[in-house]
Amino acid sequence: MDKIKLGILGVGNIGSSHINHILKGECPEIELSAVCDLKPARLAWAKETIGEAIPTFSDAEEMMKSGLIDSVLVAVPHYDHPKYAMIAMENGLHVLIEKPAGVYTKQVLAMNECAKKHDVIFGIMMNQRTNCIYRKMREIVQSGEMGAIKRTNWIITDWYRPKAYYDSGDWRATWSGEGGGVLLNQCPHNLDLWQWICGMPKTVRAHLHFGKWHDIEVEDDVTAYVEYENGATGVFITTTGDAPGTNRFEVTLEKGKLIAEGNTLTMWKSPISEPEFSATNENPFGSMKFEQTFVETDGENPQHKGVMNAFASAILHGTPLVADGIEGINGLSISNAMHLSAWTDKTIEIANLDHELFYEELMKRVATSKRKTNVKEVFARDMDNTFGTKAN
Amino acid sequence: MDKIKLGILGVGNIGSSHINHILKGECPEIELSAVCDLKPARLAWAKETIGEAIPTFSDAEEMMKSGLIDSVLVAVPHYDHPKYAMIAMENGLHVLIEKPAGVYTKQVLAMNECAKKHDVIFGIMMNQRTNCIYRKMREIVQSGEMGAIKRTNWIITDWYRPKAYYDSGDWRATWSGEGGGVLLNQCPHNLDLWQWICGMPKTVRAHLHFGKWHDIEVEDDVTAYVEYENGATGVFITTTGDAPGTNRFEVTLEKGKLIAEGNTLTMWKSPISEPEFSATNENPFGSMKFEQTFVETDGENPQHKGVMNAFASAILHGTPLVADGIEGINGLSISNAMHLSAWTDKTIEIANLDHELFYEELMKRVATSKRKTNVKEVFARDMDNTFGTKAN
Repeated sequence: MDKIKLGILGVGNIGSSHINHILKGECPEIELSAVCDLKPARLAWAKETIGEAIPTFSDAEEMMKSGLIDSVLVAVPHYDHPKYAMIAMENGLHVLIEKPAGVYTKQVLAMNECAKKHDVIFGIMMNQRTNCIYRKMREIVQSGEMGAIKRTNWIITDWYRPKAYYDSGDWRATWSGEGGGVLLNQCPHNLDLWQWICGMPKTVRAHLHFGKWHDIEVEDDVTAYVEYENGATGVFITTTGDAPGTNRFEVTLEKGKLIAEGNTLTMWKSPISEPEFSATNENPFGSMKFEQTFVETDGENPQHKGVMNAFASAILHGTPLVADGIEGINGLSISNAMHLSAWTDKTIEIANLDHELFYEELMKRVATSKRKTNVKEVFARDMDNTFGTKAN
Repeated sequence: MDKIKLGILGVGNIGSSHINHILKGECPEIELSAVCDLKPARLAWAKETIGEAIPTFSDAEEMMKSGLIDSVLVAVPHYDHPKYAMIAMENGLHVLIEKPAGVYTKQVLAMNECAKKHDVIFGIMMNQRTNCIYRKMREIVQSGEMGAIKRTNWIITDWYRPKAYYDSGDWRATWSGEGGGVLLNQCPHNLDLWQWICGMPKTVRAHLHFGKWHDIEVEDDVTAYVEYENGATGVFITTTGDAPGTNRFEVTLEKGKLIAEGNTLTMWKSPISEPEFSATNENPFGSMKFEQTFVETDGENPQHKGVMNAFASAILHGTPLVADGIEGINGLSISNAMHLSAWTDKTIEIANLDHELFYEELMKRVATSKRKTNVKEVFARDMDNTFGTKAN
C-alpha cells in the first residue's frame, strides 16, 4: 500500500497524541517520516517513543526541505499555524494544520492565498466534524427537508478548566501566547460545527468576560447573539468556569426542531412548515403536530485519526478531506468578530470584519501581556478524554 | 365559613375562566358577588352562567362603590390594570390584579404607592408561582445550599401563536391595545419566576424583533442578555413563532446545576463549590464529581385557583399571598428594560431605568399604532390549556 510520508511539527500534547495514533497502526496510509520540535525534552521523548530510525529535527524549515517528507502536520502554538503552513506549502508539501487556523483572520487570509497558489492538499484538524451526531445534523439541515433555519442555540459550557490547567504552561490563556481564551483554545470546533451545520451568521454581538472565573488575561465566559442573512437568530454560550457544564445544540427550523445533547440527536418533524400552518389554521390556539424521533446515525466517530486518514487518502486517491484548510477562516472569523464586538461594544458584520482593527486591538493586548511565573508545566501524553470526543 | 365578597372586573377570556373556577366550587372562601364588563354580550353570558341573582355592572366604579363587594379581581386589558386597581384601593377594596401589573413601570409605581397608602390586601395573578417545580427551584436557589448563581439560561420559546390568534382581537399585539408583544402578554409569568428564583438582574441588553413571524406591530422574538450584581450572567430567549418550542430553564451555581424541563427538575450537586475545587485540585484536566438527582416536589400545581384561594385566605386569615401585587413591578421592569434596550440599542441598568423615557418611547409607538380590521373575535371560555399550566 502506498503511504504518505508525514512529518510532524510540534510534539506537544496534541502532536504526541497524533504520533501515538500512527504508532498504534490506526493510520495505515501514513508513514511517520520525521518529527520536529524546538524543545530537546520533547525530541528526546519522541526518539524514545518512535525509535532512532525516524529522523528528528529542531528546525522546522530544515525538516521541510529535507526531502524526507511529502506532507506535514502543523501542531505548533496557535500563532504559528499560518507561518509554518505557508513555509510547507512553498516547499510543495501537503499540509494538515491543527485548529485554530490562526489567531487573527489577517494571517489566515494570507495563508489561504498561499494555499490557492500552490498545488498541494490543505486540510485542518476539525476532528469534531467526524462525529456522527454532527454529520447527521448537518445532513438534515443542509438538505432543506426541514425548511429554513429560524433559531440556533448552542449552550456549550462543558469546557471546564480548573486553575491547575491555566498553571500548566506560561503561555496558556495569555494574549501573547494564545491570542484568546475559550474561543481560541476550546471552541474552534464548536464555532466550526455551528457554521458548518447552520451556515455563517451575518452579524455578531458578543459579551465577553476576561479572567472572570480564573486569574487569566483572556476570556473565560462568552455569550454571543447572532443574526443570519435570512433573519434567523442564534446564541452561543461558552465558558471554562461552569461545572457541570452543558452541551446542548438546538436548531429550530420551519418544519420542526433538532437537539443534539448527550450523544443523542432528537428530531421533531412536521409534514408542513410553520408559515404554511399559520396561514391556513383557523384556531387561535391551534398548534402543529410533530413526530418526535431519536435520529439514527452510522455511529462512527473517528475523530483525529479520521481527519488524518482522510488527509492521507486525499493525497493518495483524491478523495474528500474532512475539512478543507481554507474553511478554517470561517470559525475564526466568528471568533474574531466576537472579540471585536466585545472590545468595541458594537455589533460586527462578519462579511465586513475589519481585519486590521482586530489585529491592532489584539496587538495592544499582546503588548501588555505577561507570561505567567510559578508555572507547573504538564505534558499530557494522551488527551483523548480532554477535548470533547463526545457530543454531550 | 367566612367568605370574601369578590367582584370580577372584566369577563373576557381570563375573567370568565376565573368565574368558572368559583362556580365549580374550587374556591370555597370566595363568594362571587358582582361582575362587571363594558360589553353587553359578555354580561349576557355572565348572567346566563352565574344566574340572575348575582348583580352585573357595566360601570367599574359603580360596582366598586356598590357596597356589594369587599374585594375585586381586575381582569381588564393590560393598560387599565393600575387605574382600576387604584380606584378599588381608594374604595377600601382588597385587590387581585391580572398580570402584567401594567404596561409601563411609571403607572405601576403609582399603583404601588397607592397600595402602600391604603390598608388593603394587594395581590397579583402570578399563577405560575404555584407550580411545584418552580417553587422547589426557588427554595433550592434561595436557600444558598448550592452557593451563588453563576449563570441562568431560560429558553422559553413554547408560546407558539398562529396568525388566527393575532386575528382574534383588534387590540391584540398592537402598541395601543397591549403595549407590547410576547414580553407583555405571554412572558410576565416567566419574567416574574426568573427574578423570583434567581433575583433581579442588574443590566439588560436585548435584541427584539417586531412582527418578525407575524404581521403585527409588537415584538414576537426576543433574545436578552443580563448580568447580575454578583457577576453572574444569563439569557432569556422567547418567541411566539417557534414550533415546537422549548421550555428549558437552567441555573448554574457554585455547587452544581438545576434544569427545569418537561415537568422535571434535575439537579447536579457537589459537596464542594467550584471555586474551592479549582483552588485545591492539582490535575490540569481534573473535574468535579456530581450527584445527579430528579428532585422530588410536593406535586401541587393549583395555578389560578391557588392564587385566588391564597388571596381570600390572606384577607380572612392573614396568611401569605402567592405573589404580593407590589412585586409585579419586578418582571415589568425587566420587560420595560428589554424594550428600552432594543429601542435605544443600549445596555439598560434596571435600578436606573428611565421610566419617563420608556413612557415617551412607548407613546410614540402608540401614536402611530393601528387597530386591526378584518378581525374574527374569539371568546375562549376555557383557557386552561393555553397559558402554560405545564412547566415543559
